[in-house]
Amino acid sequence: MGKTLTEKILDDHLVEGELEPGEEIGIEIDQVLTQDTTGTLVWLQFEALGLDEVQTELAAQYCDHQTYQFDFKNTDDHRFLRSAAGTFGAYFSRPGNGICHNVHRENFAAPGKTLLGSDSHTPTPGGLGQLAIGSGGLDVAVAMGGGSYFIEMPEVTEVRLEGELPEWATAKDIILEMLRRLSVKGGVGKIFEYTGPGVDSLTAPERMTITNMGTELGATSSIFPSDEQTKDYLERVGRGEEYEQLQPDDDAEYHDSLTIDLSELEPLIAEPSMPDNVVPVREAAGADVDQVMVGSCTNGAYEDILPAAKMLEGETIDLSTEMIVAPGSKKASEMLAREGWTAELMAAGVNFSEATCGACIGIGHVPGSDSVSLRTFNRNFEGRSGIEDDNVYLCSPEVAAASAIAGEIVDPRDLDEDVSAPGFEMPEAFEGAENDIIEPDEAVDDDLIKGPNIGDVPLKDPLGADIEGSALLKMDDNITTDHIIPATQDILMYRSNIPKLSEFTLSRVDDTFADRALNADGGFLVAGENYGQGSSREHAALCPMYLGIEGVLAQSFARIHRANLFNFGLLPLEIDEDTYANIDQGDDIEIVDDVAEAVRSGQEEFTIRVNDDWEATGVLDASERERDILAAGGKLSHTKQQYENEGGAAPADD
Amino acid sequence: MGKTLTEKILDDHLVEGELEPGEEIGIEIDQVLTQDTTGTLVWLQFEALGLDEVQTELAAQYCDHQTYQFDFKNTDDHRFLRSAAGTFGAYFSRPGNGICHNVHRENFAAPGKTLLGSDSHTPTPGGLGQLAIGSGGLDVAVAMGGGSYFIEMPEVTEVRLEGELPEWATAKDIILEMLRRLSVKGGVGKIFEYTGPGVDSLTAPERMTITNMGTELGATSSIFPSDEQTKDYLERVGRGEEYEQLQPDDDAEYHDSLTIDLSELEPLIAEPSMPDNVVPVREAAGADVDQVMVGSCTNGAYEDILPAAKMLEGETIDLSTEMIVAPGSKKASEMLAREGWTAELMAAGVNFSEATCGACIGIGHVPGSDSVSLRTFNRNFEGRSGIEDDNVYLCSPEVAAASAIAGEIVDPRDLDEDVSAPGFEMPEAFEGAENDIIEPDEAVDDDLIKGPNIGDVPLKDPLGADIEGSALLKMDDNITTDHIIPATQDILMYRSNIPKLSEFTLSRVDDTFADRALNADGGFLVAGENYGQGSSREHAALCPMYLGIEGVLAQSFARIHRANLFNFGLLPLEIDEDTYANIDQGDDIEIVDDVAEAVRSGQEEFTIRVNDDWEATGVLDASERERDILAAGGKLSHTKQQYENEGGAAPADD
Repeated sequence: MGKTLTEKILDDHLVEGELEPGEEIGIEIDQVLTQDTTGTLVWLQFEALGLDEVQTELAAQYCDHQTYQFDFKNTDDHRFLRSAAGTFGAYFSRPGNGICHNVHRENFAAPGKTLLGSDSHTPTPGGLGQLAIGSGGLDVAVAMGGGSYFIEMPEVTEVRLEGELPEWATAKDIILEMLRRLSVKGGVGKIFEYTGPGVDSLTAPERMTITNMGTELGATSSIFPSDEQTKDYLERVGRGEEYEQLQPDDDAEYHDSLTIDLSELEPLIAEPSMPDNVVPVREAAGADVDQVMVGSCTNGAYEDILPAAKMLEGETIDLSTEMIVAPGSKKASEMLAREGWTAELMAAGVNFSEATCGACIGIGHVPGSDSVSLRTFNRNFEGRSGIEDDNVYLCSPEVAAASAIAGEIVDPRDLDEDVSAPGFEMPEAFEGAENDIIEPDEAVDDDLIKGPNIGDVPLKDPLGADIEGSALLKMDDNITTDHIIPATQDILMYRSNIPKLSEFTLSRVDDTFADRALNADGGFLVAGENYGQGSSREHAALCPMYLGIEGVLAQSFARIHRANLFNFGLLPLEIDEDTYANIDQGDDIEIVDDVAEAVRSGQEEFTIRVNDDWEATGVLDASERERDILAAGGKLSHTKQQYENEGGAAPADD
Repeated sequence: MGKTLTEKILDDHLVEGELEPGEEIGIEIDQVLTQDTTGTLVWLQFEALGLDEVQTELAAQYCDHQTYQFDFKNTDDHRFLRSAAGTFGAYFSRPGNGICHNVHRENFAAPGKTLLGSDSHTPTPGGLGQLAIGSGGLDVAVAMGGGSYFIEMPEVTEVRLEGELPEWATAKDIILEMLRRLSVKGGVGKIFEYTGPGVDSLTAPERMTITNMGTELGATSSIFPSDEQTKDYLERVGRGEEYEQLQPDDDAEYHDSLTIDLSELEPLIAEPSMPDNVVPVREAAGADVDQVMVGSCTNGAYEDILPAAKMLEGETIDLSTEMIVAPGSKKASEMLAREGWTAELMAAGVNFSEATCGACIGIGHVPGSDSVSLRTFNRNFEGRSGIEDDNVYLCSPEVAAASAIAGEIVDPRDLDEDVSAPGFEMPEAFEGAENDIIEPDEAVDDDLIKGPNIGDVPLKDPLGADIEGSALLKMDDNITTDHIIPATQDILMYRSNIPKLSEFTLSRVDDTFADRALNADGGFLVAGENYGQGSSREHAALCPMYLGIEGVLAQSFARIHRANLFNFGLLPLEIDEDTYANIDQGDDIEIVDDVAEAVRSGQEEFTIRVNDDWEATGVLDASERERDILAAGGKLSHTKQQYENEGGAAPADD
């Protein structure tokens, strides 16, 4: 039986397990990337593990989320990250050099390599035939230390592309079509592998728009074959020697398959407030647009902004519309400036932002109240732009530029002005921003620089025999990680300071919780269905752990958060509806079993004793590896013990 | 007796009074400018006055402080300002088009005109022979309605310039030398008039660096003659027809005079944390620099950035130093981009910011803790950069660029690299950003658009006979307007929402105050010496008024805040040291006199009865005009009454 491209790369990197969907596998990681809001914790964990040198082929630290540096804590984080990269041997991309995914694809991404990144859009270089996966920061820290990355083997779905894109349809419309068909849950547990004759017509940057936004399908990753287009791109970024042709076998067997005929696509748009809320632009046309933003890791490359620039040359932005271009990388900024496009765009009325994630995560250029913002970004979740009740639409740069001219949503084919389709064009060479990555051998720091907001990572003791405490908070269904640790700028700036950050834990549910938990001697969280859905932020487990929470009783757990609970040593027990109904906030909870022993021995059912009065059952659904981690007090303690017991990959000299 | 240039322009615009230093004069205002953090209140006041059209020759609304639009309230403010400009007939400079002073000088400033602006650096176009004065927003609103602007006639001091600047010395060093000699209080109550042969050698932009930063001397304004250099600049900005030659008479008599020999100047630097803390750069050399910023209304013009760009072409920024260029106007951004300088600067490692005040007021690019920031700005007050205990130095773009290369403070003459002095060069023509000012006749709004954070301006009733209430807060000496209404971003965004903003009143002194005041039935503030020093923000009087405060008893008042207390109808009484010492917070205070009658009649001494137990004297030092305003309940009520009684300049149709 032939292999998929995914299987080939995984096979090359397999350390443990078998490539059967649903089975846990351990793989070797070649490259890692981190960014500034997740990276500080990654390095603090790396330090806590006692490691002293990066063991992967390459590690790259980017500063992209907080580059406006609204608070000294952001600036201190950047300095800390520079010092950590220098001290431990990672590449450091200076603040302002651009979004991790864009800079990584320009400088480091390569076919056949594995990449693990502490950012959900890490799969971007799948468009170059790299197998790239987003994860929590602790997994990245462990991988940097030389440890394997463990994951359930995903199903591999074939997306067969046929035909060629017609005028005005773009790569963005391909991924919007995927979202329209499959929904934001359609990729959960899957890797999408793009195949078919339509692949040839797509340049590597176009492919990376698709693989980037594959994250919005809920996919583990997305990948394209590595071919002449890949080679062409690598040559233009000056890394032609890293090209390697990679294709699935002709007789590869996919778990599932779908086909998209590119020739049938037209300009699409995701309406508020979900990326799968996709309709043809013509169906949304006519709505007044207050703000247009071109940029982000999805459509912020030079070659994404170029079509908008061509369309806007000599035109003017509607007077009631603001348009901001935020390039994805400084290389893109420099190239656009050098070729005169920046000046042309400014002449049309466009403002240029620094190269940053910025507005995409609600930092800067927050839309006005009761207004419409049209963005080339990848997410339009309600409130993500920085204002509740926002109206954010997602589209291609071409639709964005046309709408900026018209002051309303318009399909560029229907524009009054005579604007011809710019098409997609690659620059001869991607050159610029050559002084904004500090290589390990030119590092300016050899010790960590921690500002007053940068603390240590708390470690948890191994699980004991007895777990007992109050039900400190009882919550409803569908509590998100945004409820657990909000990501607004005023809180985000404490990501490197767990004691301070923990003060905000679950404050959106009950602002007395953090205080109560810190003053209690341990305790439990109680929740309904789907506890911990949303972003992958591990702070949502780490902060409750810091406050002394020892277990979470919920009707069900969201997948990534469940993994984070293991990683930080919190016992996640599933309870049934009746048990949930009968436990009140404030009740005394005791796990009757010898918890440490039961976890280690593979016991699945635990006895929960409530108010010394009645009992119920809690179910622990966990692999052997997860049980080991939990019993050790979390992955950090677990990995540290491994190093101590076995020598480990890179123990510190001390 | 000959006239100074200042006297000539004032004479041309005199409506009331005589040009005797210390006498109150009323002058006609030709142009006004407002920006986004003061402008919303200006327009709300304009609306509250019942006016419906701008009466000055020109009014211009800029959006420059909050252009990162960090919160939807910023974006809503910008939309409101656009709608107000459109509705009432002002020019609207779109967000991102640059700093008010830079855009105003490019587009509107003209010799011989009077300009009133609600920003302290309004005197910038004094470098073009315009008489430009900063004031509170209410004065701007009244002036826009056609009312006179009242001010104590300042003393006019001659600054005689001789010789020419040597290589590496710049206009910035001239104003730093002024600050070194005269201190930040040296210009209080004065207008500096630059004369002498050295004036000829300075271009208009260089002159405007000096007049801009004259504000740091505490001066009312600074002004240069209008001559061939002025004509040359106006021609290059495409407004040659607005040139008018203006010189003081040969036998003009100045109140005072000083001489600066330009040929003796060298690169200077203001050390932390006061603009007059000036030493030669060589004395500060060697300190490691973490951040370099080139921009601001002082040194953010194209021709300011150009020398830095020339120095950095082919060079690289030190790897441990971040350098950000924030152009003062989008025209400057576009010209730098069009000529390739933006790309060259980026290649050297520089990040480009949007054209904004931004970092100068602590919004964005806040320095890290325990770090050094070198800036071409005008102020380095402690904490202004956004972090307490900052270390901000002020210097020329040349010194900034040299230090960015070296990674430490360095006089460019001592730079290791072979960098030649770029000199000062004007572009052939200032062109660009032609689509970023909305003229009154192309306005897109004809009604005000108020987001949920934009309220109305509260009006105060006329002063009554009895004023009585608690001493709600007793404060020490030197309470600043930053104590009264802090200007950090989290509070600044409520500038258009007086009820909300008022919740922060004096919170830095006592965070229970606002609540207590709102719930009390009137009351008093009690303070020591120099109450209300610092910025001109009128919110520092308006918010206490909103909370119900009726009078302030202080040992002395800062000048501008005292004027603001009259403007918002709060009775400012000076008390002696014993009285201050004997009043306790919580005491009952009663003004025994018939207050309204006494204020109107010119009575100076008021009897303060404390706890129905003992009495003291409070002194009201006020002109007849100020007494009328106070009695009417403040300038807004006073002006409104005038319009109602006398027809007024522009009563609304309804």
